[in-house]
Amino acid sequence: MSSKFITLLTDFGTQDPYVSMMKGVIFSINPEVRIVDITHHIPPGAIIAGAFLLRESFGYFPLGTIHVAVVDPGVGTERKAIAVKTKDYYFVGPDNGILWPSMELQGPFQVYALDRTDFFLPNPSSTFHGRDIFAPVAAHLSNGLPIHEIGVPFEGPLRLSIPNPQREGEWLEGEVLWVDRFGNLITNIRKEHLGSTFDRRSLMVEVGDVKIVGLRNTFGDVEKGLFLAYIGSLGYLEIGINGGNAEEALRKKGFESLGARIRVS
Amino acid sequence: MSSKFITLLTDFGTQDPYVSMMKGVIFSINPEVRIVDITHHIPPGAIIAGAFLLRESFGYFPLGTIHVAVVDPGVGTERKAIAVKTKDYYFVGPDNGILWPSMELQGPFQVYALDRTDFFLPNPSSTFHGRDIFAPVAAHLSNGLPIHEIGVPFEGPLRLSIPNPQREGEWLEGEVLWVDRFGNLITNIRKEHLGSTFDRRSLMVEVGDVKIVGLRNTFGDVEKGLFLAYIGSLGYLEIGINGGNAEEALRKKGFESLGARIRVS
Amino acid sequence: MSSKFITLLTDFGTQDPYVSMMKGVIFSINPEVRIVDITHHIPPGAIIAGAFLLRESFGYFPLGTIHVAVVDPGVGTERKAIAVKTKDYYFVGPDNGILWPSMELQGPFQVYALDRTDFFLPNPSSTFHGRDIFAPVAAHLSNGLPIHEIGVPFEGPLRLSIPNPQREGEWLEGEVLWVDRFGNLITNIRKEHLGSTFDRRSLMVEVGDVKIVGLRNTFGDVEKGLFLAYIGSLGYLEIGINGGNAEEALRKKGFESLGARIRVS
Repeated sequence: MSSKFITLLTDFGTQDPYVSMMKGVIFSINPEVRIVDITHHIPPGAIIAGAFLLRESFGYFPLGTIHVAVVDPGVGTERKAIAVKTKDYYFVGPDNGILWPSMELQGPFQVYALDRTDFFLPNPSSTFHGRDIFAPVAAHLSNGLPIHEIGVPFEGPLRLSIPNPQREGEWLEGEVLWVDRFGNLITNIRKEHLGSTFDRRSLMVEVGDVKIVGLRNTFGDVEKGLFLAYIGSLGYLEIGINGGNAEEALRKKGFESLGARIRVS
Repeated sequence: MSSKFITLLTDFGTQDPYVSMMKGVIFSINPEVRIVDITHHIPPGAIIAGAFLLRESFGYFPLGTIHVAVVDPGVGTERKAIAVKTKDYYFVGPDNGILWPSMELQGPFQVYALDRTDFFLPNPSSTFHGRDIFAPVAAHLSNGLPIHEIGVPFEGPLRLSIPNPQREGEWLEGEVLWVDRFGNLITNIRKEHLGSTFDRRSLMVEVGDVKIVGLRNTFGDVEKGLFLAYIGSLGYLEIGINGGNAEEALRKKGFESLGARIRVS
Repeated sequence: MSSKFITLLTDFGTQDPYVSMMKGVIFSINPEVRIVDITHHIPPGAIIAGAFLLRESFGYFPLGTIHVAVVDPGVGTERKAIAVKTKDYYFVGPDNGILWPSMELQGPFQVYALDRTDFFLPNPSSTFHGRDIFAPVAAHLSNGLPIHEIGVPFEGPLRLSIPNPQREGEWLEGEVLWVDRFGNLITNIRKEHLGSTFDRRSLMVEVGDVKIVGLRNTFGDVEKGLFLAYIGSLGYLEIGINGGNAEEALRKKGFESLGARIRVS
């Protein structure tokens, strides 16, 4: 399993030079590897949001890709740093659950706690393991270093669950996991959750004080300015407005979108 | 015409993982190609702004580059998906006019409607053709697939015009097509529009309630804080403030910059 | 000294296509070189901030990397354009001091004023030397062009000092040079400035009306919501809040962070 690609997912933003330092460190160790940014705009410390977007994204990359995820509010504390090998990919990051949903989806995995300081930058800082530990470890893996040489087997990686929708009588209750650039609300309700017998035309969706009837295929299926519900490109039920911004419209009504409860029947 | 480069221009923003998914799809098909982001910050659905920036940018890239432009408010409706070969480049995107000004500038072109689903991702979504159709098609083209194998010849691509300035008596009337990061107003008036006999020193420019006399070479030609008019780096008449932000200054006076009318005599 | 990498640091932002035009120009001259963005979010015209982040970042990149820095409020005026060779790197940019702190840190250097217009884009604009001069010059250098062929030796590059902390009686007085994405305040006070005899536990730090006692290793060393002082990943004294945003907290109290005075005893 060769690794020509490393991806980065962080909460570092792009205004600071932090991400570029990670890239400089990686290229100094492996000048041939290719780096792709998944996103650096996870809200600071939002491990669940990071775990969710990583799980939805990692599978689009070439087999063998090394995915580095650094949303790490506990940096410098006792939490372990880990590298993981799954069927198709590697994952590197803090052991705070951010990697767990992706590992779980990939099936069997081997986990190693990073303890080989000779593969770190010299004198790693207490606050930026992305640059000093995760970047160089990923770069060494991409150079072909076997993962069992990068640390010691680690048995108990932190399990973090992305919340699942719950059935409450007639209703399936879920929540909004992410709001995208267009103001579309991405929920944790997958098509499979709706059951095989649901009727696209009579599906009822409620979020805030908005009630939507019917499931559409795409934005153009409703008139401009109207709310619609549809199965989005990640495979989840989404709420949007054709030619508009659902998050803004809800905020004007006094409803916060991220984390909002949604129910479907 | 080999294709070592693919560019991406979208309205997806960079906070979401959408752009990275397109890159993952491309690299899974062609791990050797290089991808360059033109911008992902086209205002949502702003086809004319996207078409304008694509036209101003594409020519700086190596011959053979494949330019993928996805500002696609009609995604999932009847609008066609197309791939275009011009003298020097390929273009891939929705047939909503976003590619048209670039095609027109390049002269003769061949257009193909994308109908070969074996070159798409399996089960393409209705809302994210960037990832499911345009990215894999561009990747296959970059692998050397002849464009006539990617679809069927398509005769009537949508023609979208970027507005041209109009002469009104003594005045040439144009509009502001883009406001850049510095708050500079980029108009649709090119130097050629000013005529060969115009006098740099006596040129009158009006936008909002601001009147500017004379055309300058660069910011340092006026004192700090003053408005100036100059031919910008894209070849268009621009309005800026030395050491300041023209858009903000106009907004404080109650004038919106994007789309603002401008006149010159 | 081969150059497989070019970095870019600018105040261009990423919403406009300007940065991509620089990349297109570079790849048209050297399709093999790799380009890494350090940041494009230097505040417009903020030469000192750009110089600071460049100095803190350049050393993480492979030897031979060509660092292009364009924060250039004087573009098109008399200021020179320069290329610099130091022990380990090349630097290209305007002669306005932005390169100076990096050059100084690297020790002896050779400076050349860029006067070979055959290495520029044809008809360079007066307002975008990043695309028309610095990008093509960097690309030619990356192709192996000896630096002495790119211009004429230049003796007096502008020296720009990043302010150093000053001792005032019992106090060491510094200032906040940068505020990062997390709202952490990065000061100009290095650990060395604190002296070899300082006591981590009794160190007093004051910024705005916030008083902090003691120097911590990392965020998790204080309770959620509390201010802390620590030596950050760039090697400077930083002020942050565990799980919070120090800049926002200070702003609510009426204090501006960037440029704020800080004192330590």
